[in-house]
Amino acid sequence: MPESSHLPQLSDAAVPLVAGVSVLDEAGRRKDIFIPGERPLTVYVDKQELVTLMTLGGAPEALVLGYLKNQRFVHALDELISIHVDWEVGAAAVKTRDGIHALKERQEKRTVTTGCGQGTIFGDILSDLSSIQLDPDARLHQDTMVSIVAQMRAQQSIYKQAGSVHGCAVFRGTELLMFVEDVGRHNAVDAIAGKMWLEGMSGKDLVFYTTGRLTSEMVIKGAQMGIPFLLSRSGATQMGLDMARRVGITLFGRCSGEHFLMYSGEERFVYRS
Amino acid sequence: MPESSHLPQLSDAAVPLVAGVSVLDEAGRRKDIFIPGERPLTVYVDKQELVTLMTLGGAPEALVLGYLKNQRFVHALDELISIHVDWEVGAAAVKTRDGIHALKERQEKRTVTTGCGQGTIFGDILSDLSSIQLDPDARLHQDTMVSIVAQMRAQQSIYKQAGSVHGCAVFRGTELLMFVEDVGRHNAVDAIAGKMWLEGMSGKDLVFYTTGRLTSEMVIKGAQMGIPFLLSRSGATQMGLDMARRVGITLFGRCSGEHFLMYSGEERFVYRS
Repeated sequence: MPESSHLPQLSDAAVPLVAGVSVLDEAGRRKDIFIPGERPLTVYVDKQELVTLMTLGGAPEALVLGYLKNQRFVHALDELISIHVDWEVGAAAVKTRDGIHALKERQEKRTVTTGCGQGTIFGDILSDLSSIQLDPDARLHQDTMVSIVAQMRAQQSIYKQAGSVHGCAVFRGTELLMFVEDVGRHNAVDAIAGKMWLEGMSGKDLVFYTTGRLTSEMVIKGAQMGIPFLLSRSGATQMGLDMARRVGITLFGRCSGEHFLMYSGEERFVYRS
Repeated sequence: MPESSHLPQLSDAAVPLVAGVSVLDEAGRRKDIFIPGERPLTVYVDKQELVTLMTLGGAPEALVLGYLKNQRFVHALDELISIHVDWEVGAAAVKTRDGIHALKERQEKRTVTTGCGQGTIFGDILSDLSSIQLDPDARLHQDTMVSIVAQMRAQQSIYKQAGSVHGCAVFRGTELLMFVEDVGRHNAVDAIAGKMWLEGMSGKDLVFYTTGRLTSEMVIKGAQMGIPFLLSRSGATQMGLDMARRVGITLFGRCSGEHFLMYSGEERFVYRS
């Protein structure tokens, strides 16, 4: 293959993200509202069925790519020839150069995690975490954090239109780089991971924002992306905090306006003087 | 086995549901707060590893039982001899009388769904839905619904103490029968299903309440329990609504005080005259 074609070929499959429905309210009034789409997307790797993801459908190719990466089925982009999504049949066809090693065996040991969306971690991701080193010198200033929280609040979104979705975003300083929504928050973070991978983007100077809770799996995925700062408008679970301490992530929950709670990694945060 | 022992033997493994942690707020003030527990519970069926569930840990035996039922690994209670949870090793040991048919094969085809918690559906649950008949004559009066929503709001809970968990409940009329919280909403509904199964409780005259969104999987689980009414303080996704229409569930979202939106099954709802 020529040097320029090391990136997998991706389809760009578009699909409506919301649907109009007619409902009745408490006074018997008929109302027309929007609700988010939720579609099955079955992932086939070299024609072998791997998994069915339930997704909003906004970034299906990046979702599949990030899923394969975060589940550690794929370790380098040049292992993949193409990802082709076809909504007519609800399928994502992944072509690899040399197959995925021990695919069946790796499907057998799995963890069904707390996460919305694809709460499934294969194999020994937990034990691999010890190899992750997050930048100890990264710093986040309070003004930057408040700006990020304000930008997320103002962001145009499916959530504002139809509710019932989770959003994830990555920022460099106060600059919003990526924003993805999905019916499951883990689909949203996997799609972000897929986009970052395609763009060759390191996480070491980024801030990750999620509307979802900071459970063990969310923290693990943040660590896998190499991002030292995790922000949520929701709270942390005990294992989410344990994982954050273990990998050295600076974890913030209950972010709203000026308010937040910092659970771990205080040495990276710079309060306004 | 004697007739009286057709129910599986269950442990009653208790574990702290919240943990106290020390955090910093936006003014640099140290605060002591509670966060919910989140623990791995690995399910072994006849010493063979099946799955690891991440759970709050409030009702682990019912969770495992409901998980096995909702994933259709087990079809009758007398297939099980015992479920023994040991938090020291994070394990639930399930003993069956005759094993589970085709366990390995059934693990291979699966759907990672939108749900928090155990978003995994094996095999052909979707196609089996056509066999479910929900009672067309069940009725829910508006006064009953408003009472249920008010009771859920007043309910003492881990959520109020520590946040970041989902709750599920079943009501008969205005009477609260069961209430379970977990870090994943699908764990909470599986634990409810396990408790109902143990008590031989039919869902046909019950109302199911969840704090979580009404996705396809939540509706499927409601239908599996035979419950005709699903209430949520959150909203529905498109596939959640499609499933509700297919199985004939009356679906209500955005329940808050007097307010709600009724998405489907209007014929079962009795407005105040």
